[in-house]
Amino acid sequence: MLVKMSRDATPEEVTAVEEKLHALNYKTGKMVGEEITLIGVYGDISQLPVVEIQEMGGVDTLIPISRAYKRVAQKGTAGNLIHRAVRLGNLKVGGEKLTIIAGPCSVEGEVQIMEAARIVKEAGADALRGGVVKYRSSPYSGWEGIGSTSEEALRNGLKYIVKAGREFGLPTVVEILDAADLPLYEDIGIDCLQVGEVNSKNQALLNRLRDTPLPVIHKRGNSLDIEAYLLWVERVMSAGKENVILCERGIISPNRYTRNTLDLGGIAAFHYQLSCLPVAVDASHGTGIRDLVHPMTLAGIMAGASAVLVETHPNPLIAKSDGFQGLFPEQFAGLVKACEKVWELRKRIEAHYIPTVKLDRKYEARAEADKKRFYGSA
Amino acid sequence: MLVKMSRDATPEEVTAVEEKLHALNYKTGKMVGEEITLIGVYGDISQLPVVEIQEMGGVDTLIPISRAYKRVAQKGTAGNLIHRAVRLGNLKVGGEKLTIIAGPCSVEGEVQIMEAARIVKEAGADALRGGVVKYRSSPYSGWEGIGSTSEEALRNGLKYIVKAGREFGLPTVVEILDAADLPLYEDIGIDCLQVGEVNSKNQALLNRLRDTPLPVIHKRGNSLDIEAYLLWVERVMSAGKENVILCERGIISPNRYTRNTLDLGGIAAFHYQLSCLPVAVDASHGTGIRDLVHPMTLAGIMAGASAVLVETHPNPLIAKSDGFQGLFPEQFAGLVKACEKVWELRKRIEAHYIPTVKLDRKYEARAEADKKRFYGSA
Amino acid sequence: MLVKMSRDATPEEVTAVEEKLHALNYKTGKMVGEEITLIGVYGDISQLPVVEIQEMGGVDTLIPISRAYKRVAQKGTAGNLIHRAVRLGNLKVGGEKLTIIAGPCSVEGEVQIMEAARIVKEAGADALRGGVVKYRSSPYSGWEGIGSTSEEALRNGLKYIVKAGREFGLPTVVEILDAADLPLYEDIGIDCLQVGEVNSKNQALLNRLRDTPLPVIHKRGNSLDIEAYLLWVERVMSAGKENVILCERGIISPNRYTRNTLDLGGIAAFHYQLSCLPVAVDASHGTGIRDLVHPMTLAGIMAGASAVLVETHPNPLIAKSDGFQGLFPEQFAGLVKACEKVWELRKRIEAHYIPTVKLDRKYEARAEADKKRFYGSA
Amino acid sequence: MLVKMSRDATPEEVTAVEEKLHALNYKTGKMVGEEITLIGVYGDISQLPVVEIQEMGGVDTLIPISRAYKRVAQKGTAGNLIHRAVRLGNLKVGGEKLTIIAGPCSVEGEVQIMEAARIVKEAGADALRGGVVKYRSSPYSGWEGIGSTSEEALRNGLKYIVKAGREFGLPTVVEILDAADLPLYEDIGIDCLQVGEVNSKNQALLNRLRDTPLPVIHKRGNSLDIEAYLLWVERVMSAGKENVILCERGIISPNRYTRNTLDLGGIAAFHYQLSCLPVAVDASHGTGIRDLVHPMTLAGIMAGASAVLVETHPNPLIAKSDGFQGLFPEQFAGLVKACEKVWELRKRIEAHYIPTVKLDRKYEARAEADKKRFYGSA
Repeated sequence: MLVKMSRDATPEEVTAVEEKLHALNYKTGKMVGEEITLIGVYGDISQLPVVEIQEMGGVDTLIPISRAYKRVAQKGTAGNLIHRAVRLGNLKVGGEKLTIIAGPCSVEGEVQIMEAARIVKEAGADALRGGVVKYRSSPYSGWEGIGSTSEEALRNGLKYIVKAGREFGLPTVVEILDAADLPLYEDIGIDCLQVGEVNSKNQALLNRLRDTPLPVIHKRGNSLDIEAYLLWVERVMSAGKENVILCERGIISPNRYTRNTLDLGGIAAFHYQLSCLPVAVDASHGTGIRDLVHPMTLAGIMAGASAVLVETHPNPLIAKSDGFQGLFPEQFAGLVKACEKVWELRKRIEAHYIPTVKLDRKYEARAEADKKRFYGSA
Repeated sequence: MLVKMSRDATPEEVTAVEEKLHALNYKTGKMVGEEITLIGVYGDISQLPVVEIQEMGGVDTLIPISRAYKRVAQKGTAGNLIHRAVRLGNLKVGGEKLTIIAGPCSVEGEVQIMEAARIVKEAGADALRGGVVKYRSSPYSGWEGIGSTSEEALRNGLKYIVKAGREFGLPTVVEILDAADLPLYEDIGIDCLQVGEVNSKNQALLNRLRDTPLPVIHKRGNSLDIEAYLLWVERVMSAGKENVILCERGIISPNRYTRNTLDLGGIAAFHYQLSCLPVAVDASHGTGIRDLVHPMTLAGIMAGASAVLVETHPNPLIAKSDGFQGLFPEQFAGLVKACEKVWELRKRIEAHYIPTVKLDRKYEARAEADKKRFYGSA
Repeated sequence: MLVKMSRDATPEEVTAVEEKLHALNYKTGKMVGEEITLIGVYGDISQLPVVEIQEMGGVDTLIPISRAYKRVAQKGTAGNLIHRAVRLGNLKVGGEKLTIIAGPCSVEGEVQIMEAARIVKEAGADALRGGVVKYRSSPYSGWEGIGSTSEEALRNGLKYIVKAGREFGLPTVVEILDAADLPLYEDIGIDCLQVGEVNSKNQALLNRLRDTPLPVIHKRGNSLDIEAYLLWVERVMSAGKENVILCERGIISPNRYTRNTLDLGGIAAFHYQLSCLPVAVDASHGTGIRDLVHPMTLAGIMAGASAVLVETHPNPLIAKSDGFQGLFPEQFAGLVKACEKVWELRKRIEAHYIPTVKLDRKYEARAEADKKRFYGSA
Repeated sequence: MLVKMSRDATPEEVTAVEEKLHALNYKTGKMVGEEITLIGVYGDISQLPVVEIQEMGGVDTLIPISRAYKRVAQKGTAGNLIHRAVRLGNLKVGGEKLTIIAGPCSVEGEVQIMEAARIVKEAGADALRGGVVKYRSSPYSGWEGIGSTSEEALRNGLKYIVKAGREFGLPTVVEILDAADLPLYEDIGIDCLQVGEVNSKNQALLNRLRDTPLPVIHKRGNSLDIEAYLLWVERVMSAGKENVILCERGIISPNRYTRNTLDLGGIAAFHYQLSCLPVAVDASHGTGIRDLVHPMTLAGIMAGASAVLVETHPNPLIAKSDGFQGLFPEQFAGLVKACEKVWELRKRIEAHYIPTVKLDRKYEARAEADKKRFYGSA
């Protein structure tokens, strides 16, 4: 943290800030410019009484210089990200292979989820998703998920999807909405928990998930900046938990045609620059339009996703929720094949078409000569 | 257009609206529901005095039911988009081949743009871009493009890039900022005009471009919804002009890490659902981060782009503008190769992994049986 | 709901849609235009299988024509909103008087909340607010509210604020984060529940609040459109509950200087056009900047708010949360007086400076004459 | 500017950066923390080759510490803003009195603008506005302003409004869209130029306005952050021009009900914290809804506006543009009276209900004692 003093701050005010910081057991540094004095604060900034410091005489503002998240961005000694694979049942998300997690928006019954699992398996996908309690924007829809009416109903819904997953050898991913339900999810044998967009900043739920051994797919909230989102993910990991998967599913923007705006630049930033965690793309919610799920899922892989979340249903026309975005089984089967092709190509491109030597040193070395050549002066 | 009457509208008020519309030479239809009466208005809606109608007694609101753009979305008799290729010099944008348009942010001098053209050509790209007048957010940067200081300077800047393009057989793309400069651009032999993000809604400029024979790349404004943008593109085409290319270069969103948020879902929507025009992706401005240009350009192609705009510079470290996003020549060469691979794969996927038969009829036919099977009732 | 058929739909397809709707026990109407046929659907639209209809042959799209919220917008027979006052302890929010709800961001202890209550009372405000569990963006802050560590701690925190409120005759408003805590809030005697921004779409929590007799202040989520927000409020009221208060506390926008963007146009729209419920303005969260709370609270009242939420603290410099936005007690005292003045003026303006006669009929009557006068033609 | 070195930067890399900066004639400072070394750069930062520095070995990122705008935020020696009044004809915007600028969206003819001027004058407003070339989103509307068809037409449109203004003693405000038209505006005697939302970042136009003696109302672009906007305003003032007026007219946000989202928090920030320039509020474009113009104009004054832009028309029902937001003359007359009342009250509140003594020193002094009292520890 830097304390930036005002242009008109007196030397006494600078000293007072330094003394205050020392009294709080922080070490400090100082840089006196022509117009502005900066005081550096060293130590555990999370406990700094920022308001008190901000309001001291002569203080202009506080400038953070370190990122507040650390565990989501674990780095090696050379400053490079150490990408991590996360175990999901028998799969490794973020490993050598692409992970395709698919299924209906909602578990609607034993027959339906069993048939959905068969479709997912036969297409060659890897894991089964399905919601047992569903968000609905209108209170009058009459359907809020098979598990919404009682704990018994919730238990049954969870059992259906676990049974279907086991029948076809597919690990299961189910959204959790209420921290109180965690023991139930764990007992029944759900393999991976999903935190939905609406709960991306749900502190109570995130705090509770710090302790579960299950992997967590933590979706980005639709109004969250990339780094603000990472700080919420950091919360889940703050006590040592490591098996978390990022997920981009669309944010708000001026665009009103698609249901959300899928921020694939966010995926690229997470994967290539900011986070050690694997990233999933959810183009079903990211577009909300059946025929755009295909191109946007593939684009998401190309942008850096290691996993895909996609909705398919034995008959999307009669799906009880999100039927506009669920793929027909034939579409889904084609998509799985296409995903594998795109994944292979991305790996090939990363290996062969991206220069591995650092180029900045080379161009730095010729900068002065180039300036002379281009602009007639160095 | 529909006129929706209030729940409490009287029959006399309904009649008055109908008579008003007839007096204005519109034909009407009517639908009387249990609570709401709707009046349909048939004819050239663009001349409808909407405020007068809106304020008539008993009128609740007006509901548009047709899209206001037509030329950007030319369709065949079966309702399918008729995709169009646009000639750019000797190239066809939106044809069989991907079009890669590359070059520095700014034309900085004769030597620099010649070297840039060589880099573009040797990498295998198709056209040369470069700005002669540049937008700069700060008024104190001291550099607003080689052509910013006088008409003579503008003329020279344009000549440099045309010369470089011809030397290497590359058609040239240059942004135009002022309608008054159009004759100069045409005379000197620029092959394609670019309308920048900041001018996406510049009515004076767009009106003037209706008459030029040159193709126009019209970038989407950063606060424009997809369909609002298409309406501004429609303006350029409204008098019959056909050779226009769409371009997605990033919009605003909660994301603050990348310079803009590249809306690839927009590209997918334009290409697969809304427009007959070819679409370009500009990941340089769309991310503003050198190392993200690569994955996001490829993702853009996968999402539906037929053309790529990308910035490269003989030495981006000393570029006078946008140096953070310009590719090193080696990076660019790798990207061109990767682009071709991704384009080929997309074409292969479109041909083989997307079901060509219409599936909705099939699933409609089995809907009742599926309902019984899944939910125990039809 | 309207079903808009494609331009190229066949008569058979139109008939098939109508028959489908009749089979589902909906009545229909039809309007055949020159290019487009519309089918109106009458009845309880919430149960319409929209995906099935959408995907039928010849269907272009579905156009909703009724608003999905009703209870938040109760109207009289003449179509006018019936504004409702909500009882909060001994107060009536949305009645003759402005309601000022104030207190610290967090209940930090018995002494602090008692002193805060004294400050609130002596300034002349009406109700006491204070959080016992707090949202914190960083997981490393070490303080998540006095009630965050155990149920015992939660109980104590709630008791402190109730005690302070009763001591000074101030009803109490406390945010509830977890549906499971509702009985505790009710038993201890909290007078009003607050749903925070982050829970604005928390379905589990909102569903649970349908049954409480306590009034609820439901804050607008920062990514919610006005009407989408009203639909979430409708959820709380959907089983008959009536005592709900709207609250605008800021949304996201391109503005990054203030903590959020306070949408006072939303307040004006709620109060004057869309909702029968009273509206509160929270400029503390809406700006996040101590010195902007004052003007923005007053502006909020002028825009249509009937209640004010504002943070003040006995010493904001040492507040454990949100200290940048808490008012100093002297500032708060001045604000309360200013609020009363603004409220009085608004009431005077509403009574005297807004024409009470409907003007549209008058100007409609002279439209043709004016056209001739202004444009030379009618 | 600060250069933040990476955690793993070597001492040699730090030295290289310092030497580079010295070679560029910058002075530097240094602060060596436990993990991070910062290098301060002193001098004219606008010429710093930021990309070159950024890409040097061991550099993490560059952190700006000074604001890039200065003239829009002129301050006194004590750091306080020196608010400036701007002369507009015989008026002083930002002085003792509120300035009300009103008129139709478009000048539609001699008779119409004369009648509009009379309405404006009789209501007690101060200046006359009216557009002669108009932005229209659809290219098919058939009306783009009385001055859109030729230079002759533009000249006539300008003459009409000047004549009307002089007849009633009202200075005139007209939007300018094309830099080439400036001499015409100046010659005909327009008193104040308006830069519209769409031109907020139009570099060519803004550059040209640096030289005009006429005052300029520079509207904020709908996607501009507060400080980004100020930097565009700084451009107009960068060569010494002083008579510029800020204007908030709405930005984009998740809200879709109002035409734009009027950012009154921006007005408060400009007036009370960031700028020495007077601020105008335009609730006509900020809401787009006739009946919301009234409350939002008043709220804008309460938030800190010194001037009001508002649309009124002799008969808004037949207005050729923006008829949904133009006030009926009777509404406008009431609004003018209400504006004066609100302005008076704001001045009274500023004088009497905002503590004039600095409170932070007082609360700082008691911080330790309060901590002991509230938390049992200092």
